Amino acid sequence: MNQEKGILVVFSGFAGSGKGTIMKELMKRYPDTYALSVSATTRDPRPGEIEGREYFFKTEDEFLRLAHENQMLEFAQYVGHYYGTPRAYVEQKLEEGYDVILEIETQGALKVKELMPDTLLMFVTPPDADTVFNRLTGRGTEDTQTINRRMAKAYEESNIIGAYDYWVINDDLESCVEEVHAIIQNEHSRTCRKKEQIKCMKQQLSCYVK
Amino acid sequence: MNQEKGILVVFSGFAGSGKGTIMKELMKRYPDTYALSVSATTRDPRPGEIEGREYFFKTEDEFLRLAHENQMLEFAQYVGHYYGTPRAYVEQKLEEGYDVILEIETQGALKVKELMPDTLLMFVTPPDADTVFNRLTGRGTEDTQTINRRMAKAYEESNIIGAYDYWVINDDLESCVEEVHAIIQNEHSRTCRKKEQIKCMKQQLSCYVK
Repeated sequence: MNQEKGILVVFSGFAGSGKGTIMKELMKRYPDTYALSVSATTRDPRPGEIEGREYFFKTEDEFLRLAHENQMLEFAQYVGHYYGTPRAYVEQKLEEGYDVILEIETQGALKVKELMPDTLLMFVTPPDADTVFNRLTGRGTEDTQTINRRMAKAYEESNIIGAYDYWVINDDLESCVEEVHAIIQNEHSRTCRKKEQIKCMKQQLSCYVK
Repeated sequence: MNQEKGILVVFSGFAGSGKGTIMKELMKRYPDTYALSVSATTRDPRPGEIEGREYFFKTEDEFLRLAHENQMLEFAQYVGHYYGTPRAYVEQKLEEGYDVILEIETQGALKVKELMPDTLLMFVTPPDADTVFNRLTGRGTEDTQTINRRMAKAYEESNIIGAYDYWVINDDLESCVEEVHAIIQNEHSRTCRKKEQIKCMKQQLSCYVK
């Protein structure tokens, strides 16, 4: 684990981009470097779900109060329940030095960046549109209408890639995971994330100046 | 060599930071990826120096005309002669797909960034001020006055690190060279450097949308 503050990394990507798998691999390979964000929800816990592990379970009043106080980095309603990303948990993990990873859709990603401008936005896609289509049809579980809807959504999302910091192509999972890891770790060397250390270097050098 | 356009990378750093060695190592290890910028000068060629290899040799009139037309990315006068970075050579190598590397002082680096905003600025330093001092004294070739002057210059330069994109610490040469290489290569995945490819992906996806 780094002693310095971690980076919040948001992943989005087309259906079939494998972003979920990339995140799981990062957690498996570098458990001391990364932490997964834990969402909050107003739905009831299911058997076996533990508070703070699967979700933070909230009443609707609690949830909406947090959202109103900008304590939800983003949130949305889905089948009658709220789901969102509590800021406090993310900030705690960042303070502990973890790079915190979060998988959300494009709208949510832009909201997070607005509330926490240091957030690193990464967009994952297959190498080309044919591969997007082939991966969706290859699953063999989706009907034509669903596939058409997902292709239309990918088309829509392609308008927003430019608002992300990085565009990563998942052609070969193995090399993609290592590329994503390298990008995040190199991001720590950006001067805008090193303000304290630059101040410290300047301070040290001043002792040598007569 | 990448088929896409290369990135112009400018290195600056404290005396004793090893930035020259890092650049030589990059050229040695990845000759198909990197090209060194070639400077222009108004001084006479020395025996063995070849036009376009050590320098582009210019008359003062030619040099100043190029500078006036913004065809020098930066230039300075030194012991009665002009030295500068011709834009044409850099752009030719970038078009060929090379990442072009250039070692210059902080003033010149900021001028280059002004004329070519896509330039990647990297600042290299030893891990701390004591190491800066120890490396300078350890050479055993500089007198106290020179060392004091260099420490004072490092102090001055520490005010400008924040204007660079990345701050790289050269503690262990081997890992520093690979870190620098990874930073430059990952920079190719920034969405601001992928505008054409994003457009192309969007175009491909549009064919699937009824």
